[in-house]
Amino acid sequence: MEFQLDHAKEILGRTPATLNSLLEHLPQEWLLSNEGPDSWSPFDVVGHLIHAEETDWIPRARIILEYGEKRAFEPFDRFAMFEKSRGKAMGDLLAMFERRRGESLQELEEMNITPEMLEKQGRHPDLGVVTLIQLLSTWVVHDLSHVGQIVRVMAKQYGETVGAWEAYLPVLRR
Amino acid sequence: MEFQLDHAKEILGRTPATLNSLLEHLPQEWLLSNEGPDSWSPFDVVGHLIHAEETDWIPRARIILEYGEKRAFEPFDRFAMFEKSRGKAMGDLLAMFERRRGESLQELEEMNITPEMLEKQGRHPDLGVVTLIQLLSTWVVHDLSHVGQIVRVMAKQYGETVGAWEAYLPVLRR
Repeated sequence: MEFQLDHAKEILGRTPATLNSLLEHLPQEWLLSNEGPDSWSPFDVVGHLIHAEETDWIPRARIILEYGEKRAFEPFDRFAMFEKSRGKAMGDLLAMFERRRGESLQELEEMNITPEMLEKQGRHPDLGVVTLIQLLSTWVVHDLSHVGQIVRVMAKQYGETVGAWEAYLPVLRR
Repeated sequence: MEFQLDHAKEILGRTPATLNSLLEHLPQEWLLSNEGPDSWSPFDVVGHLIHAEETDWIPRARIILEYGEKRAFEPFDRFAMFEKSRGKAMGDLLAMFERRRGESLQELEEMNITPEMLEKQGRHPDLGVVTLIQLLSTWVVHDLSHVGQIVRVMAKQYGETVGAWEAYLPVLRR
């Protein structure tokens, strides 16, 4: 499918509601269980999404539009949320994500992105030359991917209690 | 994690809102795109969830409670939705799923399931002896699994437009 900015905004705008319906007021053990050592719980994932909102998507879009390929993005810290989320409640994180996402979409709106701007190039510190269209597409896929991670992590908590049905549930083996 | 009936109800009760926030009023091409031949679109998945609501979960729970192992469940038709959903709009299916799920949870409530009842055994036509606890656990995992499928199918629509970021997005290779 071709990238369409209005579609991207539409999908990005829905993620806070999706996370709220999945996680708000859910019993704590569902929020904090993960897939084993070095894996993330739903709580960790939401913290990660907040950190991406604060340091990744819009900041990188600005760098592309202001500096092009001349200035590489700051590397993204995939583990920052372990410190940043400490002591917070899930409800705090969900509200924070909703606020940050609203701000991001507002800033995106104010950038008045044209088709020409979408083709502008920037420089990823590891991946090399990328475009604004690729950054915005990645933002969408990243959201969907982490919603998928949350439901997979949750599904695995009942991986044993499904008994023989495990054979029909490939999600439990991912 | 051990199965808890109140947790299962809590998660099952959230799925209609999750699907609505992901899919309601989304542009048609996102609703109808799939992962290639013989794969399902988000539209197909919601139809499948409705069919499961009508013929799988509660009907099978009733068979377990009324007949135990003596009567095998009816086989579940994994493709019934292709016919049943024909000509319907996504909004119709989402509203139908929300209604059916509400009815299912109401019926589950009225079963007044005790810990002893959860251990009752039934017979799956292919998998053999199963328990009510396994059926209800599977219902939860099945919901989460299909939410995961929907977001994966959506993510793949931008699989090309993410460019080099594809390397960081394993969801695109599942």
